[in-house]
Amino acid sequence: MGVSDFAGGLVVHATAGVSSLVFVLLMGKRAIFPSELRPPHNPAFVMLGAGMLWVGWFGFNAGSALGANAAAGHAMLVTHLSASTAALVWMAIEWVKYGKPTLVGIATGTIAGLATITPAAGSVGPAGALLIGGLASVTCYMAVVYVRGRLKIDDSLDVFAVHGVGGILGTLLIPFLASFGPMAPGLGGTPFADKLFAQLTGVVSVSLYSAILSAAILLTIRRVIALRVSPEHETNGLDSSTHGESAYGHG
Amino acid sequence: MGVSDFAGGLVVHATAGVSSLVFVLLMGKRAIFPSELRPPHNPAFVMLGAGMLWVGWFGFNAGSALGANAAAGHAMLVTHLSASTAALVWMAIEWVKYGKPTLVGIATGTIAGLATITPAAGSVGPAGALLIGGLASVTCYMAVVYVRGRLKIDDSLDVFAVHGVGGILGTLLIPFLASFGPMAPGLGGTPFADKLFAQLTGVVSVSLYSAILSAAILLTIRRVIALRVSPEHETNGLDSSTHGESAYGHG
Amino acid sequence: MGVSDFAGGLVVHATAGVSSLVFVLLMGKRAIFPSELRPPHNPAFVMLGAGMLWVGWFGFNAGSALGANAAAGHAMLVTHLSASTAALVWMAIEWVKYGKPTLVGIATGTIAGLATITPAAGSVGPAGALLIGGLASVTCYMAVVYVRGRLKIDDSLDVFAVHGVGGILGTLLIPFLASFGPMAPGLGGTPFADKLFAQLTGVVSVSLYSAILSAAILLTIRRVIALRVSPEHETNGLDSSTHGESAYGHG
Repeated sequence: MGVSDFAGGLVVHATAGVSSLVFVLLMGKRAIFPSELRPPHNPAFVMLGAGMLWVGWFGFNAGSALGANAAAGHAMLVTHLSASTAALVWMAIEWVKYGKPTLVGIATGTIAGLATITPAAGSVGPAGALLIGGLASVTCYMAVVYVRGRLKIDDSLDVFAVHGVGGILGTLLIPFLASFGPMAPGLGGTPFADKLFAQLTGVVSVSLYSAILSAAILLTIRRVIALRVSPEHETNGLDSSTHGESAYGHG
Repeated sequence: MGVSDFAGGLVVHATAGVSSLVFVLLMGKRAIFPSELRPPHNPAFVMLGAGMLWVGWFGFNAGSALGANAAAGHAMLVTHLSASTAALVWMAIEWVKYGKPTLVGIATGTIAGLATITPAAGSVGPAGALLIGGLASVTCYMAVVYVRGRLKIDDSLDVFAVHGVGGILGTLLIPFLASFGPMAPGLGGTPFADKLFAQLTGVVSVSLYSAILSAAILLTIRRVIALRVSPEHETNGLDSSTHGESAYGHG
Repeated sequence: MGVSDFAGGLVVHATAGVSSLVFVLLMGKRAIFPSELRPPHNPAFVMLGAGMLWVGWFGFNAGSALGANAAAGHAMLVTHLSASTAALVWMAIEWVKYGKPTLVGIATGTIAGLATITPAAGSVGPAGALLIGGLASVTCYMAVVYVRGRLKIDDSLDVFAVHGVGGILGTLLIPFLASFGPMAPGLGGTPFADKLFAQLTGVVSVSLYSAILSAAILLTIRRVIALRVSPEHETNGLDSSTHGESAYGHG
């Protein structure tokens, strides 16, 4: 039915985000949530990981062109524009709101920009990519605040608010950004309303499918093993209890 | 004489492994070996290094096709399959044996899978690659236990047990995995027994060459400078004594 | 007028270096400079960053060939030769001078070798690249000692001494290394003296342009906001005062 999803914004990020929401609802919260919530232990490692993801994402998005061709180059360009813009916008939001932009915030904004451009990497031009990056950070930031702060849902890596909301946002923005404005490549003959309806149907069906299947899988697993470690292990950390390793631990 | 070694499993990993065995036998053990042996200081850095090696290995194995062609794509695919399988199998071995799979174990399994597929990356299909990955971790794990635990040889990075045994294993598996099973590409007309004999001859001659030359080089060096640092430097660490630097040391 | 600058040694590194010199002269020194100057906090992160830069630099220098062609392969080869040589030479200088080669020194030498080959990556052969790497470390090392030790200029990342001096050195070496010696590709008909004059004119004009514009920008900014953080923030570190984050801080 003609749903556009260039590099898996719907089939990777929306599914992951919706499934993660189902998981955290069924798993419940950590003992420390939200009163003793701490920021990531090592911001430099967070940035390293985000940097590696950023480079690897070029492989996903440009690779979805299935060739070393102009579509791949285009996908790489708009991916980079969206990620860069989203990183700066997330930084700006933190700066205005708290007076202190953080490395972890820039990394989160980058991921939001990457997830949101993913479905649209073949459908929007450079100007659309800049807009997607900005909207990605504004929307995902509000989603993080709403999910964690208002709904008190303990999605520790913000998978729903960043990947899920980002993937859905990018999918729904395609009809608008491909149709209007300078450098918009157009919808190739499909009427705007049909395209928007197709994208909406895609989002709803993929989300429902992910939610139902994830719930079924998790409810089955829950009959066999516990979904949460014991409170002591949670407090002491899984590095020690599950893996017998410790960061910077030995000599 | 028709020895198959696609990307240097024999000329890189078997040579390195055998030479390393000669080196540690001639160098002797660290003062702390084996009673006070400690795991790697920082598992996150170990994983970062393994991840970079994993990506870089695609350059070696796919690059050995000497072109951006189907052979390169095939080499990259089987390399990834073997590395992933080996990582999971090593994790499973630790899980069954100690109850705690470790990050360092997954990293070691990855390297075993990469070294073992290296000579075979042009000769086996995807099914063969999965088998190579599994056999790599089982064999190299047993080699680590035997070399370190039974023979009490202080090969601190397990170069012989992982690179050497892996490279030799992959070289010897080629005739079997290229000849039998689904998706096996075959030996291109060479009879199985001839191929196996060729591979065996390759392993023996490369190993002997490496062992003899490494011993000659090391015995020569030993006449000029000590092969070991002093016990005090060994205890205090070379970061400080040799490089005057310390990790996380300043401010 | 025929200035050779293959991958931006002049327009990236000379400009950055000269601008950085203007900046640090206008900003002044840190309170701890030079008496309490400390080496980088985490040498492993320095090496990780240098390794990523090294790989990324292939993108810049080979990518400046604007195609997956022989010129790109050539640029990648000479880039690698120069970086490797420079790393070893910087290490040797430290070894001879202080008895202790450092990880940070090897990383700095690598960057010097990369910056210096950048303008010349299309103009010199492998032998020229080895020479450029060696000269890069010797010259940039002396520049670091002179700028920091003698002139007491607080350029904390040695941007002028490494990027600026390296970029200028590589630009000026092109006429010599492209004209003389084995494997020198030649100047394509341009007389040596004309080429040297062109390169010199390029260096002088780019440096003057960068210096004047940087000074103008900085003097304008200085009327609006302070160029330095307060002494307390400088002592406590910007991680805390500006970003509200701390390395390894939380749990």
